[in-house]
Parts: sequence; structure tokens; C-alpha cells
Amino acid sequence: MTTYNLTVFPGDGIGPEIVDQGLRVLEWVEEAYGVKFDIHTDLLGGISYDTHGLPLTEAALAKAQASDAVLMGSVGGPKWDGKTDYDKRPEQGLLNLRKGLNVFANLRPAYCFDALADASSLKKELVAGLDMLIVRELAGGVYFGEPRGINTLEDGTREGINTQRYHESEISRIARVGFEMAQKRGGRLVSAEKSNVMESGLLWREVVTAVATDYPDVELSHMLADNCAMQIVRAPKQFDVIVTDNLFGDLLSDEAAMLTGSLGMLPSASLSDEGPGLYEPIHGSAPDIAGQDLANPIATILSFAMALRYSLNLGDAATAIEHAVSVTLDQGYRTADIMSEGMKSVGTKAMGDALLAAL
Amino acid sequence: MTTYNLTVFPGDGIGPEIVDQGLRVLEWVEEAYGVKFDIHTDLLGGISYDTHGLPLTEAALAKAQASDAVLMGSVGGPKWDGKTDYDKRPEQGLLNLRKGLNVFANLRPAYCFDALADASSLKKELVAGLDMLIVRELAGGVYFGEPRGINTLEDGTREGINTQRYHESEISRIARVGFEMAQKRGGRLVSAEKSNVMESGLLWREVVTAVATDYPDVELSHMLADNCAMQIVRAPKQFDVIVTDNLFGDLLSDEAAMLTGSLGMLPSASLSDEGPGLYEPIHGSAPDIAGQDLANPIATILSFAMALRYSLNLGDAATAIEHAVSVTLDQGYRTADIMSEGMKSVGTKAMGDALLAAL
Ligand SMILES: CC(C)[C@H](C(=O)O)[C@@H](O)C(=O)O
Ligand SMILES: CC(C)[C@H](C(=O)O)[C@@H](O)C(=O)O
Repeated sequence: MTTYNLTVFPGDGIGPEIVDQGLRVLEWVEEAYGVKFDIHTDLLGGISYDTHGLPLTEAALAKAQASDAVLMGSVGGPKWDGKTDYDKRPEQGLLNLRKGLNVFANLRPAYCFDALADASSLKKELVAGLDMLIVRELAGGVYFGEPRGINTLEDGTREGINTQRYHESEISRIARVGFEMAQKRGGRLVSAEKSNVMESGLLWREVVTAVATDYPDVELSHMLADNCAMQIVRAPKQFDVIVTDNLFGDLLSDEAAMLTGSLGMLPSASLSDEGPGLYEPIHGSAPDIAGQDLANPIATILSFAMALRYSLNLGDAATAIEHAVSVTLDQGYRTADIMSEGMKSVGTKAMGDALLAAL
Repeated sequence: MTTYNLTVFPGDGIGPEIVDQGLRVLEWVEEAYGVKFDIHTDLLGGISYDTHGLPLTEAALAKAQASDAVLMGSVGGPKWDGKTDYDKRPEQGLLNLRKGLNVFANLRPAYCFDALADASSLKKELVAGLDMLIVRELAGGVYFGEPRGINTLEDGTREGINTQRYHESEISRIARVGFEMAQKRGGRLVSAEKSNVMESGLLWREVVTAVATDYPDVELSHMLADNCAMQIVRAPKQFDVIVTDNLFGDLLSDEAAMLTGSLGMLPSASLSDEGPGLYEPIHGSAPDIAGQDLANPIATILSFAMALRYSLNLGDAATAIEHAVSVTLDQGYRTADIMSEGMKSVGTKAMGDALLAAL
């Protein structure tokens, strides 16, 4: 029987309870597909800081690096805001994990579930059937660039500094992921940057344009990031795949996710060239509802499905889970974040029950 | 008779034709309010590059600095993309103008005109009555930070670099503008940054929090920029004033503008502590429709109205113009960008005629 090693970081806030439902689904996969998951649960974020004084220990990172896939919930919360050294805040644990796994390609689908098209703040006809993918560079840019920090100048005043830094090899490897995803999907790629203001964006545009010659079947266009932020609101269905840097990807993918009306539903996969991928819901740790059986576990469950597909060669199991999510929605089950009139309101665990029943 | 010196930069693309309509409105103000505008028209952007080899000459900047207000259309276009040295591209002329005037406070209202509430891609009830203001830092951050450029490394490969740099004095002065605007409006200020990832954002949050003690009547909250990009789509009416940095302000204000359905309608004012303000529509140069009498001149006309209010002490004239815009819309006049069934489709000049008739 094939055995896979998984490292699981439930993290903070709603993380543990949504991960619990994801693990139930993995148990189902073990039975249904005759595989075995060796699961090592570890600490990430605020809970790791509280225990070890660090948001990610070297031992935990080493475990993660040695596993077949890394699954997580979410990190951070007001409990730690400003209460730790900056380089020990919960989010730094996540950034260290991403960097340590070298998962430079963050795939963020923004998909509108038919059953939820009404839940969008956009007019239904603009989002029904929406299926776009944001490919966000995740291991570089201003998130990791040096120099950085808050410096005290000679006169005693302070200055905050961050550096956006992209090497052409970092740009070409993420561009390739963008083109390959576009090949598998609708054949259209939009590259977003601010080349009219930032030299790093200019290099980005040049390198993406050069890489395009290897993908003649993909239609490439360039869009300024501010215009992209507009176009996502104006007519999201114009997009197939967007490739962009770490910071623009952060904003644009959250914007795109929100307009599907399905923030609690959207998964993400972060991939490296070799080594395990990292799978996490795109939503945050929602500390205000943590521990109350209110959170929507579907984004996490769909993230675990992406792990099955991209890291564990269990694409059939992934498809089965995705199908079960649709069925569960069609049956009317809704957690609070996606509740609407006439539907069946359920908690985190009951949503897991419904999904397992559908499986 | 009071005489005001105005420098006017029509710029590129649709700039000249929309500025023409703005100048007609200024002629009306001269007659109606017994003032005189001494107008010096000069070159900015691509047209300046074509004429002088520079997107803004020192002489033109000096003229602008010495005037009472600076009015502009728009700059840039594919004609110049990649065809000039990077520091001579059209947009650099605009950046040099902003920096040369030290207009650090960019006020970008996102206002939903009643007559246009249906034109938004958002559900009508989410945008009807929307009236928010983005206060964007305009003279600092990654737009101007050094070091920057594309460097060739020892091994011959290249790296693109930009630097986000904010001094605490730059943060506090823009924060004050944010608080003062909130005082005059709904009393609520949201400060947006990525303090969970960027030290410059952490300093931003600290300084804004410190400045808040001088404005006890304003309710301050902090929001991560990615969450802000979401919330603007989810429930825009939650916002009164948002204060944010140059780059986040670029994306968030375009996003907010688009969701009003009125991109061709929205003006902006950029103010310094002393010296003239700069007034420009928030939309771009739309080269695809330039010279065809198709562009909507209202954003430019409303920008000129902001100049009357903020730089020329002619608030009554500004109010009269804003009122005339509402009347013209209520009468059904629409340029192509805001056209809808049953309305009267007009060109750039005819929209100017209708507005003057309403005045
Ligand atoms: C939690 C935070 C560090 C993170 C980011 O900024 O990348 C989050 O917003 C995300 O998008 O995954
Ligand atoms: C034209 C460009 C330089 C400019 C900017 O990025 O500031 C524009 O997008 C704007 O928002 O005024």
C-alpha cells in the first residue's frame, strides 16, 4: 500500500477546526483509494510562538521539507499583533515556511460556484460561470527583498524600508507556470505589473514577453496592475490566467476571490520545482469566530484536494471531493458565511458530515 | 478684478479634447464670478517628449510651480511604450510634475452618481449613494524610492529593483490630511497597509496611530491592504475615508472608482502644503478613442471644479459646476462610456454644450 507523509499545520484561529474536517476527508480517501497517510501535525504561527518562542521551528520546517505534501489552516490574530518581535510574528512563520519549501508558484483559482452566484456583490450575470486562476509569485519580491526594516537616521527620526527585488530567473520560472496553466485552461495569459512606474515591473514585462516565444499557443497580454484591479471588478470573465508578483498577487487574488462571493470556499496550492507543495485556504484565521463551530471548512477541504492532485498523484480522489462539494451545496447546506434564505444552515462539523455523506 | 495664473497640460491621447471642454467651463466662471484666468498651456508627457526630448521641461515645471493651480488631461500611450529611455517615458513627466510640485496628498473621491447607479458592475443597492474618499500619498514610496533600476549582476544576468521608503514625516503629513478629511466628512478613517509583511507598513501603522491622538473625534481603524481590496468589493459603503500609500492607493483607488460605474466621471486633486495643487481626472489617456469626440469630459471638468474649490477660493463656482453635472445627467445626456438604454448619446463637445446650458 502506498504511504504518503503529510505535514499538517492547523495554525491559529479557525485553523484547527477547519483542518479537522479536512483530515476526516483524508481518512475517507485512505479507505476509498487504498492508500495510507502518515500524518505529522506540527505548530505554525502564533501557537508555535506561544510554545517555542518562534513562529516556525527549524525542526518543523525540516519535517515539512521531508514530507510529500504540507497542509495548513491559517495563522495570526490580534492576540499577537505587536506583541512579538517583528521577525517572530505569526505571519513570519508562514513566510519562512513558503521560503523554506521554495514554493514560488501560488495557484489561486477564483471560481464561482453555481449555487453561490447570488452571493456575490457583483451582478449575477458578471460572475456566474466565472473560473479564473491567479498565478502569484510567492517566494520573492517585496516579501523577502533586502534591505528592509525601520532605520533610525542621524537626526533620530525613523524611516521604513522594503525592497522589491526580482531576478530574471525568478520571473521566468513563474511566467512558465503561468503559460503552462493557460495551456491547460483557456489559452489566455495576462501578466500584471506596474512597468510604467517600476523598473522591476519593466524587467517583469520583458522577461514574460521573452518566455512567451516558447508558448506560441498561449495568447499573452500585459496589463498594468491598477488597470487589472479595475478590470477584475468590471468584467472578471475576461480573464483566464493572470500571472503577477507577490504583492500585486496578494491584493488582486483577494479582490478576485471576494467577487465570487465564495471567500470561505477557495483553496490554494503553492508549488516548487521539486519538493512538497503547500496547500492552504486563501482566507485568513478569522479569530472572531474561532472555536465556535462557525467556520466554513470547504476552502481547506478543497486545498487538501489540490494536494491530492498536484503532490500525491490522486487526481481521481481530488475530483471526487470537488464533486461532493458541489453536491453538498446543491443540497442546500450552507455555513454562515454563505448562508442565504431557504438554505440549511450548518456549522463546521455538520458541513464536514454532509460532505462525507455526499462522498 | 482678481486674476489667477493657471498652468494647463492637455497631455496625450484624449487629454486635449477633454481639457478643451474644461476650459470652456472656466470661461463661464470668469464671466459669472468676475474673475480672470491667465492661462498658460504647456506640454507634458509624450507630446513634450516628441517636441523637446523630455516628458517635462524644467521651464514648464517652473511655470507650473509659479502658478495658482495646475490643470491637466492625461499622459502616455502605446506610441511611446518602450520607445523612449525609461526616465523619459511620458509617465515620468507626470511623476516629475507631482514631485516638483510636492503634491503629496492625492484626494480621490469614489462617488456614485444617482443617475449612474445602474452602470456599476456591483448590485445597485451596494453602490447607490456611495461616497468615499481615498487619500493617497503621492510624492513618496516605491514611486520615488532609491535604489532602483535594472542591474546586471556579475554573471551577466539581470535583476530589477525598486525601493519602498517612507520617512515618518511623510507618513504623518499624509495621515493628517486623512484625519482632516474624515473630520469634514463622516468622521471615520481607515488606514491601509501590509504591516504584517512590510516594515514600512509597520511604521506607517505606528505613525498613523500616534497622529490619531490629535484627532479624538475621528474613529481610526487599520486594515491590511489585501483585505481592503476585498472589502471595497464586498461592501464599499462601509468606508468614509481611506488613507494609504502611493502604490496601494494606485490600485485601491482604481478599483473603487470602477465600482461606481463612473470611471469617466471621477476627478482628483493633489495638494501640497504650500504652492499650487494639481488637478487631473483619474482615468487614463484612452489612446484608442482619442481625437474622435468620444471621450467623457466630466472627470476633467470636475477636476477643474476641485481646483476652484481647493486652490482658487471659488467654492461657490465649484458647487455650481458639480450641480450642473447632476442636472445634465438627470436630463439624460451620456457619453459612450456611461450610455444606457433610453438616454441621449452625445460626444465630448456636445456634453460640454449640455453642461454649459445647465450652467
Ligand atoms: C498572512 C499573510 C502573510 C499572507 C500574505 O500576505 O501573503 C496572506 O495575506 C496571503 O495572501 O496568503
Ligand atoms: C500614469 C501613472 C504613472 C499613474 C500612477 O501610477 O500614479 C496613474 O496610474 C495614476 O493613478 O494617476
